Amino acid sequence: MKSIYILFAVLFSTPLAFFGAPEIVKSPNGNVEVNFSVENGVPFYSVNFKGKPAVLKSRLGLELAKLPSLMDGFSLDKSERSSFYETWKPVWGETAEIQNHYNEALFTLSQKSPARKMLLRFRVYDDGVGFRYEFPKQPALNFITVKDEHTQFAMPGDITAFWIPADNGTQEYEYVKSKLSEIRKIMPAATNKTDWASPVGPTSVQTSLQLITNDGIYMNIHEAALVDYSCMHLKLDDKNMVFESELVADPTGNKCYLVADAKTPWRTIILGDKAVDMLSSNLILNLNEPCKIADTSWIKPVKYVGVWWEMITGKSAWSYTSEKALPLTKEAYAKAKPHGRHGATTENVKRYIDFAAKHGFDQVLVEGWNIGWEDWANKEKENVFDFVTPYPDFNLPVLLEYAKSKGVRLMMHHETAGQVRNYERHLDKALQFMKENGYNSIKGGYVGYIIPWGESHYGQYMNNHYLYVVKKAAENKIMVNAHEAVRPTGLCRTYPNLIGNESARGTEYQAFGGSRPEHVTILPFTRLQGGPMDYTPGIFNMDISSFNPRNKSKVLSTICNQLALYVTLYSPLQMAADFPEHYEKHMDAFQFIKDVAVDWDDSRYIDAEPGKFIIAARKAKGSENWFAGCVVNSEGRDTELKLDFLSPGKTYAATIYSDAPHADFEKNPHAYKIEKRDVKSSDTLKIRCARGGGWAISFFPKP
Amino acid sequence: MKSIYILFAVLFSTPLAFFGAPEIVKSPNGNVEVNFSVENGVPFYSVNFKGKPAVLKSRLGLELAKLPSLMDGFSLDKSERSSFYETWKPVWGETAEIQNHYNEALFTLSQKSPARKMLLRFRVYDDGVGFRYEFPKQPALNFITVKDEHTQFAMPGDITAFWIPADNGTQEYEYVKSKLSEIRKIMPAATNKTDWASPVGPTSVQTSLQLITNDGIYMNIHEAALVDYSCMHLKLDDKNMVFESELVADPTGNKCYLVADAKTPWRTIILGDKAVDMLSSNLILNLNEPCKIADTSWIKPVKYVGVWWEMITGKSAWSYTSEKALPLTKEAYAKAKPHGRHGATTENVKRYIDFAAKHGFDQVLVEGWNIGWEDWANKEKENVFDFVTPYPDFNLPVLLEYAKSKGVRLMMHHETAGQVRNYERHLDKALQFMKENGYNSIKGGYVGYIIPWGESHYGQYMNNHYLYVVKKAAENKIMVNAHEAVRPTGLCRTYPNLIGNESARGTEYQAFGGSRPEHVTILPFTRLQGGPMDYTPGIFNMDISSFNPRNKSKVLSTICNQLALYVTLYSPLQMAADFPEHYEKHMDAFQFIKDVAVDWDDSRYIDAEPGKFIIAARKAKGSENWFAGCVVNSEGRDTELKLDFLSPGKTYAATIYSDAPHADFEKNPHAYKIEKRDVKSSDTLKIRCARGGGWAISFFPKP
Repeated sequence: MKSIYILFAVLFSTPLAFFGAPEIVKSPNGNVEVNFSVENGVPFYSVNFKGKPAVLKSRLGLELAKLPSLMDGFSLDKSERSSFYETWKPVWGETAEIQNHYNEALFTLSQKSPARKMLLRFRVYDDGVGFRYEFPKQPALNFITVKDEHTQFAMPGDITAFWIPADNGTQEYEYVKSKLSEIRKIMPAATNKTDWASPVGPTSVQTSLQLITNDGIYMNIHEAALVDYSCMHLKLDDKNMVFESELVADPTGNKCYLVADAKTPWRTIILGDKAVDMLSSNLILNLNEPCKIADTSWIKPVKYVGVWWEMITGKSAWSYTSEKALPLTKEAYAKAKPHGRHGATTENVKRYIDFAAKHGFDQVLVEGWNIGWEDWANKEKENVFDFVTPYPDFNLPVLLEYAKSKGVRLMMHHETAGQVRNYERHLDKALQFMKENGYNSIKGGYVGYIIPWGESHYGQYMNNHYLYVVKKAAENKIMVNAHEAVRPTGLCRTYPNLIGNESARGTEYQAFGGSRPEHVTILPFTRLQGGPMDYTPGIFNMDISSFNPRNKSKVLSTICNQLALYVTLYSPLQMAADFPEHYEKHMDAFQFIKDVAVDWDDSRYIDAEPGKFIIAARKAKGSENWFAGCVVNSEGRDTELKLDFLSPGKTYAATIYSDAPHADFEKNPHAYKIEKRDVKSSDTLKIRCARGGGWAISFFPKP
Repeated sequence: MKSIYILFAVLFSTPLAFFGAPEIVKSPNGNVEVNFSVENGVPFYSVNFKGKPAVLKSRLGLELAKLPSLMDGFSLDKSERSSFYETWKPVWGETAEIQNHYNEALFTLSQKSPARKMLLRFRVYDDGVGFRYEFPKQPALNFITVKDEHTQFAMPGDITAFWIPADNGTQEYEYVKSKLSEIRKIMPAATNKTDWASPVGPTSVQTSLQLITNDGIYMNIHEAALVDYSCMHLKLDDKNMVFESELVADPTGNKCYLVADAKTPWRTIILGDKAVDMLSSNLILNLNEPCKIADTSWIKPVKYVGVWWEMITGKSAWSYTSEKALPLTKEAYAKAKPHGRHGATTENVKRYIDFAAKHGFDQVLVEGWNIGWEDWANKEKENVFDFVTPYPDFNLPVLLEYAKSKGVRLMMHHETAGQVRNYERHLDKALQFMKENGYNSIKGGYVGYIIPWGESHYGQYMNNHYLYVVKKAAENKIMVNAHEAVRPTGLCRTYPNLIGNESARGTEYQAFGGSRPEHVTILPFTRLQGGPMDYTPGIFNMDISSFNPRNKSKVLSTICNQLALYVTLYSPLQMAADFPEHYEKHMDAFQFIKDVAVDWDDSRYIDAEPGKFIIAARKAKGSENWFAGCVVNSEGRDTELKLDFLSPGKTYAATIYSDAPHADFEKNPHAYKIEKRDVKSSDTLKIRCARGGGWAISFFPKP
């Protein structure tokens, strides 16, 4: 990641003579306007988009434990203005370059007694706003215990939201579309009842929160650069339609602990006229720090298969034996009686290696390779895994040699079961073990109650842990894809070895009762704002009971919808999640998964509407190949794709994978058709999508 | 540690035909008798000593979270009896050999619904009882969340106790002597009001608890082998005079988490006719596992001086600069402005090395050598120390070379400020740093709030941490002396590199307002039952204001009382805590500190009474030299010492350090006299002890 061009000009910096008059900060093109004022000692801001209200006048401030609050008693001492422009090149991404262009205002606020300063920094982009609190080192404010952050987002009326319940135990929810006024009523039904769920409150929702105002403005509220702070939910005052930041607490009830100089994460508001503006925004990446890894040559996008879906669907098991609470030693497991359903056997993994090698995949994930899976998550057991000891029937040296001979790598799996002291104690050895054995990427997991007890998945303590692992991995040139970690906030700009996260409801839920087709039309608006998701698409056999009669869950998607996800859900890490034998029945459709790129020079969001459909086209990194995809909701859709993104004058061999006429995610999910034809940039394709369907197209330029 | 002789005989093991009839287990000499019964499904025990009641009929059992309780519904399935005899040799200790002789009963209890087994194992010694719960692996009891342990100790009436308040934040209390019925009334005044104190309840006290029954039985209640469990306080029902176990909770309110096979620590009851029986008991060591360290050749008792008392008294500082919240980097500190009061300067440490070398000390402790002390304990700051970066004015290579040239080692100091994630993250590097620089012992510290937030110093999470550090250190052949860690429970038998702990009110409190002379007459009965204490005796200048006018605290002790502590407070780790310049004014008295041994072949507790006085004599390891000491309370005492412990027929050159006629801990603490004379085993010495005074004697056999 290199900045190509930087222009930085301090426009003016002046002590302010009169307080109360609002300070106006406009975006470079003037579309976004922030008003900031201090009235009766209280800081306020509001945001307009193209002259229409987006965020009404909203209060800012924090309550502290032990110290007087930072809520009021302020005067505005100073307003410093500047502009910034750069383009930077991500190590991997949706486009080869990203433009970072904003006007900035830094407001210095002061209190008299005790004498303290608090800064508010606003960055105003043409597609939204980021702002944060900053606490310079000062005698009366060195150590800060945040009791509550009271950042408000006053909504312009009873607008439409795509939301999931705020929860300190899980982020794996389906989205609800409703008016703000309906959240309270819907919340009980929307809330997860599992043991590990920890819902926050009757009107509290997670970010990133996608909104549509009654004026038709698309607005997204989230956060950027969540470092050494607690994750933010949003609590709605549904009388006044005002959201307020609701930070995840630690076991004592405090929200987080800061040492000055300190700053909060950015609070982000993405704004646009059209739904696709939300998808193409780079505001959150731009608000993160530039890359801190000097040599990034070892960071590579990955397309992978793995021993995973068979455990998720219940066909095989992570565990090796039915014996419980075994000591975590090679010797104990050597004596244990296998139950015969273990997935990660040498033989089975070889089968996946063969398949990966044959079809050009980079890596093979193997879950359940290491001892400890007999009783792992949500158990009163801290030392659940050691991350280095394979099961007796997983012959690592043989498999490493086998994979190497086929030009494929194994992908490491580090399930922690939320037991992070245990993981950190083993981490150095585990990374050493990976290096010695040629692994270069980890799929991590944090399923279950956190130990230390009382900590939740998304508080400052755990957020610190997730980043600790990413940094340690980077020191060892290892890429990380952590599941069940806090929802991402663009930190992959700073640490691009963070190549993925789950942190939302992934494909696995198709084996746990299913996810409605609407889900994948919303994820890019919400969860993906913070960074790529390891969604693990590519399921070709929707009838799970056909191979595991005990599991009646259906995958609520057509095959073409599955193909489209490789384009519509951007990620540098893409799995083909189904079994080799299922792909082998549909090798013609599988060709798209083989062909599709995982890194891009360009991306175009053609048309979209959250909850309805997404159409995207992307140009593969360093090539003239394009790939397009469309996913639709459970209503189906007639779509149109103008090919004007293709290079004019060139002819492309297009392969169009689309739902067969009678395809339907519920009744006929496996029906697709494949059409090959030559196309030009002046062409327009019209394609019918089935209910829960979609299409995928590859475009290869003809010589 | 080697067992010399083991006899193990299963006496009988039989299913029991009739329930309810008490099972009787007697000690080898019959003095101690345990009665165990299950009545209406509830397990009970009682203990008699020489036919008199010590513990009346007391209930046993645990409540679990998530699972039905282990309180009742039991039947007694089986009673297995055995005897055990061994002698073992401690790596260091009060005697060359320790006898471990007990009769054991293992009671198997079962519940019907759910079908579960719980075992109670009693070991009955001539000097007391240990018992614990055991949970074998079984389908209905693999993962156990202990909500509460309800082990009762029903006292024989309103007896006398030497107690300190139960507190989850500190153990650093002065003892109260009172009747049990007075505890509630005295508790408020006895409780620490500091920020970090976390008192438990109005009648809750810490162990080890020294008691005297109204029949004159001395009884001590504590625990042995506190491993992977929560520390036990005792809560008094002061209507019925029944103590009950009160475990330290985690932030969620649970007490601890066990994975079967699991066992609790031993609950210990030491019994005797005389106070000295309490002091000579090895019951707690015996209930711990034998040494787990194969090669113990590197574990050596240590006599040391250090840069410490000058910071404790406020004469100098741990910190280097007055700047706050500095980044923890060498560079930041290189630029910081020193405040000029830093204690751990190269020059000052050289002075201590010179002194140590001249007077035969093994090591020099240096506190405040590493960056971070500007804002350490009780701050909202997790990354407070890195354990490897010296302050700019502490030239480590020069000092290491200097110490080496003088035949002295530096002692490492690892203050963690309670921030154990930070410590564990740095531990491997910190130990590596020690090895590279020739350190072989750590003084550790846990001052301040624990992070993870909400954890207390003595819960399962932290107890696991303390032992993790001891084991990691052992792997690196490093000895550990952890301050502010959980009170010890005899684990030094298993891990003899745990050469000390503070875990009680040490000499430092003499600089914080003082400790009454009674304190050191009680510590060996209570805190020292679990293992040696790094009490840091040897203060020669009692008037702190003479060198730091801002500190008005007085050391409440005569010089001879200070000398005696080297004998009366057993430890393989002894500091001479005062400044070289203070010792240099009293080199004649200092000779005793130079002469006294730190490891012993034999120890005799001649006479004692908690709160009044202790007289002990010890024979130095591998030599014919004896050392005797006496400390008394604030009333003073006329004492008599029969020298019958000396070898008959031999003449010894005795040097008798005793209080001068007008010595007094308050009015004249520095007055002493030294008498040299030849003595024999048939002699008796009569020595007057001043108020807060004592005496010390060295006996060297004449050729």
